[in-house]
Amino acid sequence: VQIVIPIYDRFTALDAVGPYEVLSRLPGAEVVFAAGSAGPVRTDTGSLGLVADVSLEHITACDVLVVPGGPGSRTIQGDESFLDWVRAIDATSSWTTSVCTGSVILAAAGLLEGLLATTHWSAIEQLESFGATYGAQRVVTEGKFMTSAGVSAGLDMALTLAGLIAGHDIARAIQLALEYDPVPPYDDGSLAKASPDIVALVRAATAARR
Amino acid sequence: VQIVIPIYDRFTALDAVGPYEVLSRLPGAEVVFAAGSAGPVRTDTGSLGLVADVSLEHITACDVLVVPGGPGSRTIQGDESFLDWVRAIDATSSWTTSVCTGSVILAAAGLLEGLLATTHWSAIEQLESFGATYGAQRVVTEGKFMTSAGVSAGLDMALTLAGLIAGHDIARAIQLALEYDPVPPYDDGSLAKASPDIVALVRAATAARR
Repeated sequence: VQIVIPIYDRFTALDAVGPYEVLSRLPGAEVVFAAGSAGPVRTDTGSLGLVADVSLEHITACDVLVVPGGPGSRTIQGDESFLDWVRAIDATSSWTTSVCTGSVILAAAGLLEGLLATTHWSAIEQLESFGATYGAQRVVTEGKFMTSAGVSAGLDMALTLAGLIAGHDIARAIQLALEYDPVPPYDDGSLAKASPDIVALVRAATAARR
Repeated sequence: VQIVIPIYDRFTALDAVGPYEVLSRLPGAEVVFAAGSAGPVRTDTGSLGLVADVSLEHITACDVLVVPGGPGSRTIQGDESFLDWVRAIDATSSWTTSVCTGSVILAAAGLLEGLLATTHWSAIEQLESFGATYGAQRVVTEGKFMTSAGVSAGLDMALTLAGLIAGHDIARAIQLALEYDPVPPYDDGSLAKASPDIVALVRAATAARR
Protein backbone atom coordinates (compact mmCIF):
# COMPACT_ATOMS: atom_id res chain seq x y z
CA VAL A 1 0.00 0.00 0.00
CA GLN A 2 1.65 3.20 -1.22
CA ILE A 3 0.51 6.16 0.89
CA VAL A 4 1.44 9.71 -0.06
CA ILE A 5 1.11 12.67 2.30
CA PRO A 6 1.83 16.04 0.67
CA ILE A 7 2.87 18.76 3.11
CA TYR A 8 3.22 22.50 2.57
CA ASP A 9 4.19 25.62 4.49
CA ARG A 10 1.97 26.16 7.57
CA PHE A 11 0.19 22.81 7.50
CA THR A 12 -0.98 21.42 10.85
CA ALA A 13 1.33 18.66 12.09
CA LEU A 14 -1.28 16.39 13.67
CA ASP A 15 -3.38 16.44 10.48
CA ALA A 16 -0.54 14.59 8.78
CA VAL A 17 0.95 12.61 11.67
CA GLY A 18 -2.35 11.13 12.92
CA PRO A 19 -3.09 9.26 9.66
CA TYR A 20 0.63 8.51 9.17
CA GLU A 21 0.80 6.82 12.58
CA VAL A 22 -2.15 4.55 11.73
CA LEU A 23 -1.57 3.85 8.04
CA SER A 24 2.18 3.24 8.34
CA ARG A 25 1.29 0.17 10.44
CA LEU A 26 -0.69 -1.49 7.65
CA PRO A 27 1.00 -4.64 6.35
CA GLY A 28 3.20 -3.64 3.39
CA ALA A 29 2.65 0.08 3.94
CA GLU A 30 5.03 2.51 2.28
CA VAL A 31 4.44 6.07 3.44
CA VAL A 32 6.05 8.98 1.64
CA PHE A 33 5.98 12.61 2.78
CA ALA A 34 6.30 14.91 -0.22
CA ALA A 35 6.39 18.65 -0.86
CA GLY A 36 7.10 21.15 -3.63
CA SER A 37 10.79 20.68 -2.87
CA ALA A 38 12.31 17.87 -0.81
CA GLY A 39 13.50 19.05 2.60
CA PRO A 40 12.04 20.42 5.84
CA VAL A 41 8.58 22.00 5.79
CA ARG A 42 7.50 24.17 8.73
CA THR A 43 4.15 23.68 10.42
CA ASP A 44 1.61 26.37 11.27
CA THR A 45 3.11 27.19 14.68
CA GLY A 46 6.57 27.73 13.19
CA SER A 47 8.12 25.61 15.92
CA LEU A 48 8.29 22.27 14.11
CA GLY A 49 9.63 21.05 10.80
CA LEU A 50 8.75 17.77 9.13
CA VAL A 51 10.96 16.43 6.38
CA ALA A 52 9.52 15.90 2.91
CA ASP A 53 11.70 13.12 1.52
CA VAL A 54 10.58 13.51 -2.07
CA SER A 55 9.48 16.39 -4.28
CA LEU A 56 5.94 16.24 -5.66
CA GLU A 57 7.12 15.98 -9.26
CA HIS A 58 8.68 12.59 -8.50
CA ILE A 59 5.38 11.13 -7.35
CA THR A 60 3.04 10.16 -10.15
CA ALA A 61 0.73 7.62 -8.50
CA CYS A 62 -0.31 6.15 -5.15
CA ASP A 63 -2.90 3.93 -3.52
CA VAL A 64 -3.86 6.36 -0.76
CA LEU A 65 -3.55 10.14 -0.92
CA VAL A 66 -3.86 11.94 2.44
CA VAL A 67 -4.12 15.74 2.22
CA PRO A 68 -3.64 17.50 5.57
CA GLY A 69 -5.07 20.92 6.40
CA GLY A 70 -3.93 23.92 8.39
CA PRO A 71 -3.73 27.70 7.99
CA GLY A 72 -1.42 27.24 4.99
CA SER A 73 -4.21 25.53 3.05
CA ARG A 74 -5.58 28.99 2.27
CA THR A 75 -2.46 29.68 0.20
CA ILE A 76 -1.95 26.28 -1.39
CA GLN A 77 -5.59 25.95 -2.42
CA GLY A 78 -4.84 28.76 -4.93
CA ASP A 79 -1.62 27.19 -6.24
CA GLU A 80 -2.53 25.76 -9.64
CA SER A 81 0.56 23.58 -9.97
CA PHE A 82 -0.24 21.96 -6.60
CA LEU A 83 -3.88 21.47 -7.62
CA ASP A 84 -2.76 19.93 -10.92
CA TRP A 85 -0.62 17.48 -8.97
CA VAL A 86 -3.56 16.62 -6.68
CA ARG A 87 -5.79 15.99 -9.70
CA ALA A 88 -3.16 13.83 -11.41
CA ILE A 89 -2.55 11.70 -8.30
CA ASP A 90 -6.27 11.40 -7.61
CA ALA A 91 -6.66 9.92 -11.07
CA THR A 92 -4.45 7.02 -9.92
CA SER A 93 -5.54 6.55 -6.29
CA SER A 94 -7.79 3.94 -4.73
CA TRP A 95 -8.54 6.39 -1.90
CA THR A 96 -8.31 10.17 -1.86
CA THR A 97 -8.59 11.47 1.69
CA SER A 98 -8.22 14.62 3.73
CA VAL A 99 -8.01 15.91 7.27
CA CYS A 100 -9.37 19.28 8.42
CA THR A 101 -9.11 21.94 5.69
CA GLY A 102 -7.35 19.44 3.45
CA SER A 103 -10.83 18.87 2.06
CA VAL A 104 -10.97 22.51 0.94
CA ILE A 105 -7.86 21.78 -1.16
CA LEU A 106 -9.55 18.72 -2.68
CA ALA A 107 -12.64 20.83 -3.35
CA ALA A 108 -10.57 23.63 -4.87
CA ALA A 109 -9.12 21.02 -7.22
CA GLY A 110 -12.68 20.30 -8.31
CA LEU A 111 -12.76 16.79 -6.89
CA LEU A 112 -15.65 17.19 -4.45
CA GLU A 113 -18.17 18.88 -6.76
CA GLY A 114 -21.64 17.79 -5.71
CA LEU A 115 -20.31 15.43 -3.04
CA LEU A 116 -20.85 15.29 0.71
CA ALA A 117 -17.64 16.10 2.61
CA THR A 118 -16.46 17.38 5.97
CA THR A 119 -13.81 19.78 7.22
CA HIS A 120 -12.84 21.79 10.30
CA TRP A 121 -15.97 23.45 11.71
CA SER A 122 -14.50 26.90 11.04
CA ALA A 123 -14.10 26.20 7.30
CA ILE A 124 -17.58 25.03 6.32
CA GLU A 125 -18.32 28.03 4.11
CA GLN A 126 -14.95 27.73 2.37
CA LEU A 127 -15.61 24.06 1.62
CA GLU A 128 -19.09 24.74 0.27
CA SER A 129 -17.82 27.64 -1.87
CA PHE A 130 -16.09 25.00 -4.01
CA GLY A 131 -19.23 22.99 -4.64
CA ALA A 132 -19.14 20.36 -1.90
CA THR A 133 -21.94 19.88 0.64
CA TYR A 134 -20.84 19.87 4.29
CA GLY A 135 -21.71 16.82 6.35
CA ALA A 136 -21.40 17.21 10.11
CA GLN A 137 -20.04 13.69 10.69
CA ARG A 138 -16.47 13.19 11.90
CA VAL A 139 -15.62 11.05 8.89
CA VAL A 140 -17.50 11.22 5.58
CA THR A 141 -17.08 8.58 2.89
CA GLU A 142 -18.33 9.22 -0.66
CA GLY A 143 -17.11 6.58 -3.07
CA LYS A 144 -13.32 6.70 -2.91
CA PHE A 145 -13.27 10.08 -1.15
CA MET A 146 -12.91 10.05 2.61
CA THR A 147 -12.81 13.41 4.39
CA SER A 148 -12.49 14.06 8.10
CA ALA A 149 -13.22 16.91 10.49
CA GLY A 150 -10.63 19.08 12.25
CA VAL A 151 -7.06 18.04 13.10
CA SER A 152 -7.52 15.06 15.46
CA ALA A 153 -10.25 13.50 13.29
CA GLY A 154 -7.58 12.11 11.00
CA LEU A 155 -7.01 9.35 13.56
CA ASP A 156 -10.60 8.15 13.34
CA MET A 157 -10.55 8.45 9.55
CA ALA A 158 -7.32 6.48 9.22
CA LEU A 159 -8.59 3.66 11.44
CA THR A 160 -11.78 3.50 9.37
CA LEU A 161 -9.69 3.37 6.20
CA ALA A 162 -7.33 0.75 7.69
CA GLY A 163 -10.33 -1.49 8.29
CA LEU A 164 -11.50 -1.13 4.69
CA ILE A 165 -8.02 -1.77 3.27
CA ALA A 166 -6.74 -4.54 5.53
CA GLY A 167 -9.76 -5.85 7.43
CA HIS A 168 -11.19 -5.19 10.86
CA ASP A 169 -8.71 -7.31 12.82
CA ILE A 170 -5.69 -5.40 11.49
CA ALA A 171 -7.40 -2.07 12.19
CA ARG A 172 -8.29 -3.18 15.72
CA ALA A 173 -4.68 -4.28 16.29
CA ILE A 174 -3.46 -0.86 15.16
CA GLN A 175 -5.90 0.80 17.56
CA LEU A 176 -4.51 -1.30 20.40
CA ALA A 177 -0.89 -0.69 19.35
CA LEU A 178 -1.57 3.06 19.56
CA GLU A 179 -3.53 2.52 22.80
CA TYR A 180 -6.22 4.67 21.21
CA ASP A 181 -8.81 4.58 23.98
CA PRO A 182 -9.43 8.31 24.23
CA VAL A 183 -10.52 9.89 27.51
CA PRO A 184 -10.48 13.66 26.91
CA PRO A 185 -10.58 15.57 30.20
CA TYR A 186 -13.23 17.94 28.77
CA ASP A 187 -16.17 17.50 26.43
CA ASP A 188 -15.81 20.53 24.14
CA GLY A 189 -14.46 18.79 21.07
CA SER A 190 -17.16 19.82 18.60
CA LEU A 191 -19.15 22.91 17.73
CA ALA A 192 -22.32 21.18 18.95
CA LYS A 193 -20.82 20.50 22.38
CA ALA A 194 -18.78 23.62 23.13
CA SER A 195 -20.31 26.63 24.83
CA PRO A 196 -20.46 29.97 22.94
CA ASP A 197 -17.69 31.56 25.05
CA ILE A 198 -15.31 28.72 24.18
CA VAL A 199 -16.21 29.02 20.49
CA ALA A 200 -15.50 32.76 20.68
CA LEU A 201 -12.09 32.08 22.27
CA VAL A 202 -11.12 29.79 19.39
CA ARG A 203 -12.35 32.19 16.72
CA ALA A 204 -10.27 34.98 18.26
CA ALA A 205 -7.15 32.81 18.47
CA THR A 206 -7.64 31.53 14.90
CA ALA A 207 -8.03 35.06 13.55
CA ALA A 208 -4.81 36.09 15.34
CA ARG A 209 -2.84 33.25 13.71
CA ARG A 210 -3.81 33.86 10.13
CA VAL B 1 5.77 28.63 28.78
CA GLN B 2 8.93 26.99 27.50
CA ILE B 3 8.20 23.42 26.34
CA VAL B 4 11.02 21.08 25.35
CA ILE B 5 10.47 17.84 23.43
CA PRO B 6 13.61 15.72 23.05
CA ILE B 7 13.51 13.30 20.12
CA TYR B 8 15.84 10.44 19.25
CA ASP B 9 16.30 7.77 16.61
CA ARG B 10 13.20 5.51 16.28
CA PHE B 11 10.88 7.53 18.51
CA THR B 12 7.15 7.34 17.71
CA ALA B 13 5.97 10.46 15.89
CA LEU B 14 2.51 10.78 17.46
CA ASP B 15 4.01 10.53 20.97
CA ALA B 16 5.70 13.85 20.30
CA VAL B 17 3.26 15.51 17.91
CA GLY B 18 0.14 14.91 20.02
CA PRO B 19 1.38 16.98 23.01
CA TYR B 20 3.07 19.47 20.66
CA GLU B 21 -0.23 20.13 18.89
CA VAL B 22 -1.98 20.88 22.19
CA LEU B 23 0.75 22.65 24.16
CA SER B 24 1.93 24.85 21.29
CA ARG B 25 -1.49 26.52 21.45
CA LEU B 26 -1.06 27.68 25.05
CA PRO B 27 -0.78 31.47 25.32
CA GLY B 28 2.91 32.37 25.22
CA ALA B 29 4.00 28.83 24.37
CA GLU B 30 7.48 28.29 22.98
CA VAL B 31 8.00 24.72 21.84
CA VAL B 32 11.47 23.45 21.01
CA PHE B 33 12.27 20.07 19.47
CA ALA B 34 15.78 19.01 20.48
CA ALA B 35 18.08 16.04 19.88
CA GLY B 36 21.66 14.92 20.41
CA SER B 37 22.54 16.87 17.27
CA ALA B 38 20.35 19.45 15.56
CA GLY B 39 18.83 18.18 12.31
CA PRO B 40 16.38 15.55 11.11
CA VAL B 41 15.59 12.60 13.37
CA ARG B 42 13.89 9.53 11.88
CA THR B 43 10.87 7.95 13.53
CA ASP B 44 10.34 4.26 14.28
CA THR B 45 8.81 3.45 10.88
CA GLY B 46 11.76 4.98 9.04
CA SER B 47 9.41 6.83 6.72
CA LEU B 48 9.27 10.19 8.51
CA GLY B 49 11.82 12.67 9.80
CA LEU B 50 11.13 15.45 12.29
CA VAL B 51 13.59 18.29 12.59
CA ALA B 52 15.33 18.91 15.91
CA ASP B 53 16.05 22.64 15.77
CA VAL B 54 18.47 22.65 18.70
CA SER B 55 20.99 20.23 20.17
CA LEU B 56 20.36 19.05 23.71
CA GLU B 57 23.51 20.69 25.07
CA HIS B 58 22.04 24.12 24.27
CA ILE B 59 18.99 23.53 26.43
CA THR B 60 19.60 23.93 30.12
CA ALA B 61 16.12 24.60 31.51
CA CYS B 62 12.42 24.53 30.65
CA ASP B 63 8.95 24.79 32.14
CA VAL B 64 7.57 21.60 30.61
CA LEU B 65 9.61 18.59 29.54
CA VAL B 66 7.78 16.09 27.30
CA VAL B 67 9.60 12.80 26.70
CA PRO B 68 8.12 10.70 23.88
CA GLY B 69 8.45 6.93 23.62
CA GLY B 70 8.88 4.44 20.83
CA PRO B 71 11.04 1.42 19.99
CA GLY B 72 14.14 3.64 20.18
CA SER B 73 13.54 4.25 23.87
CA ARG B 74 15.15 0.87 24.55
CA THR B 75 18.43 2.25 23.26
CA ILE B 76 18.28 5.77 24.65
CA GLN B 77 17.27 4.58 28.13
CA GLY B 78 20.80 3.18 28.38
CA ASP B 79 22.53 6.34 27.14
CA GLU B 80 24.02 7.96 30.24
CA SER B 81 24.63 11.34 28.64
CA PHE B 82 20.98 11.50 27.58
CA LEU B 83 19.85 10.47 31.05
CA ASP B 84 22.16 13.11 32.60
CA TRP B 85 20.49 15.71 30.40
CA VAL B 86 17.02 14.50 31.44
CA ARG B 87 17.99 14.72 35.13
CA ALA B 88 19.47 18.21 34.68
CA ILE B 89 16.40 19.53 32.87
CA ASP B 90 14.04 17.88 35.32
CA ALA B 91 15.80 19.80 38.10
CA THR B 92 14.57 23.03 36.45
CA SER B 93 11.10 22.03 35.19
CA SER B 94 7.67 22.79 36.57
CA TRP B 95 6.33 19.66 34.84
CA THR B 96 8.18 16.56 33.71
CA THR B 97 5.98 14.45 31.46
CA SER B 98 6.08 11.44 29.17
CA VAL B 99 4.10 9.58 26.56
CA CYS B 100 4.18 5.80 26.06
CA THR B 101 7.62 4.34 26.86
CA GLY B 102 8.97 7.83 27.51
CA SER B 103 8.16 7.03 31.13
CA VAL B 104 10.66 4.16 31.00
CA ILE B 105 13.31 6.73 30.10
CA LEU B 106 12.27 8.92 33.06
CA ALA B 107 12.35 5.84 35.29
CA ALA B 108 15.77 4.80 33.96
CA ALA B 109 16.98 8.27 34.91
CA GLY B 110 15.86 7.49 38.46
CA LEU B 111 13.09 10.07 38.50
CA LEU B 112 10.11 7.79 39.12
CA GLU B 113 11.53 5.73 42.01
CA GLY B 114 8.65 4.76 44.28
CA LEU B 115 6.13 6.74 42.23
CA LEU B 116 2.97 5.70 40.41
CA ALA B 117 3.36 6.05 36.63
CA THR B 118 1.95 4.69 33.39
CA THR B 119 3.33 3.59 30.03
CA HIS B 120 2.38 1.58 26.94
CA TRP B 121 0.67 -1.65 28.06
CA SER B 122 3.47 -3.72 26.49
CA ALA B 123 6.16 -2.01 28.63
CA ILE B 124 4.77 -2.41 32.16
CA GLU B 125 7.53 -4.76 33.32
CA GLN B 126 10.23 -2.51 31.89
CA LEU B 127 8.77 0.48 33.74
CA GLU B 128 8.55 -1.38 37.03
CA SER B 129 12.10 -2.74 36.65
CA PHE B 130 13.27 0.84 37.27
CA GLY B 131 11.37 1.24 40.54
CA ALA B 132 8.11 2.83 39.44
CA THR B 133 4.70 1.32 40.14
CA TYR B 134 2.42 0.93 37.13
CA GLY B 135 -0.98 2.60 37.27
CA ALA B 136 -3.49 1.50 34.66
CA GLN B 137 -4.98 4.96 34.14
CA ARG B 138 -4.52 6.76 30.83
CA VAL B 139 -2.86 9.73 32.54
CA VAL B 140 -1.12 9.51 35.92
CA THR B 141 -0.13 12.61 37.90
CA GLU B 142 2.29 12.35 40.82
CA GLY B 143 3.43 15.76 42.00
CA LYS B 144 5.08 17.39 39.00
CA PHE B 145 5.35 14.12 37.07
CA MET B 146 2.67 13.39 34.52
CA THR B 147 2.93 10.15 32.55
CA SER B 148 0.57 8.84 29.92
CA ALA B 149 -0.23 5.50 28.30
CA GLY B 150 0.64 4.45 24.76
CA VAL B 151 1.11 6.80 21.78
CA SER B 152 -2.29 8.52 21.44
CA ALA B 153 -2.62 9.09 25.20
CA GLY B 154 -0.32 12.10 24.92
CA LEU B 155 -3.30 14.07 23.60
CA ASP B 156 -5.33 13.47 26.75
CA MET B 157 -2.29 14.17 28.92
CA ALA B 158 -1.50 17.43 27.18
CA LEU B 159 -5.09 18.67 27.47
CA THR B 160 -5.03 17.82 31.17
CA LEU B 161 -1.76 19.69 31.55
CA ALA B 162 -3.03 22.65 29.51
CA GLY B 163 -5.91 23.01 31.97
CA LEU B 164 -3.53 23.01 34.93
CA ILE B 165 -1.18 25.54 33.33
CA ALA B 166 -3.62 27.94 31.66
CA GLY B 167 -7.03 27.17 33.13
CA HIS B 168 -9.97 25.09 31.98
CA ASP B 169 -11.33 27.58 29.42
CA ILE B 170 -8.07 27.70 27.47
CA ALA B 171 -7.81 23.90 27.52
CA ARG B 172 -11.41 23.57 26.35
CA ALA B 173 -10.73 26.05 23.54
CA ILE B 174 -7.71 24.00 22.45
CA GLN B 175 -9.85 20.86 22.43
CA LEU B 176 -12.37 22.62 20.19
CA ALA B 177 -9.65 24.05 17.93
CA LEU B 178 -8.34 20.50 17.39
CA GLU B 179 -11.93 19.24 17.06
CA TYR B 180 -10.94 16.53 19.53
CA ASP B 181 -14.24 14.72 19.84
CA PRO B 182 -12.97 11.20 19.25
CA VAL B 183 -15.20 8.54 17.70
CA PRO B 184 -12.96 5.53 17.11
CA PRO B 185 -14.60 3.04 14.72
CA TYR B 186 -13.60 0.15 17.01
CA ASP B 187 -13.35 -0.31 20.78
CA ASP B 188 -10.04 -2.14 21.14
CA GLY B 189 -7.91 0.71 22.41
CA SER B 190 -6.76 -0.80 25.69
CA LEU B 191 -5.56 -4.15 26.98
CA ALA B 192 -8.72 -4.45 29.06
CA LYS B 193 -10.98 -4.01 26.02
CA ALA B 194 -9.16 -5.89 23.26
CA SER B 195 -9.73 -9.60 22.66
CA PRO B 196 -6.80 -12.02 23.10
CA ASP B 197 -6.39 -12.60 19.34
CA ILE B 198 -6.00 -8.86 18.74
CA VAL B 199 -3.46 -8.61 21.58
CA ALA B 200 -1.52 -11.50 20.01
CA LEU B 201 -1.51 -9.73 16.63
CA VAL B 202 0.04 -6.62 18.20
CA ARG B 203 2.63 -8.57 20.15
CA ALA B 204 3.73 -10.36 16.97
CA ALA B 205 3.95 -7.10 15.01
CA THR B 206 5.84 -5.37 17.84
CA ALA B 207 8.35 -8.22 18.10
CA ALA B 208 8.93 -8.03 14.34
CA ARG B 209 9.71 -4.32 14.50
CA ARG B 210 12.31 -4.39 17.26
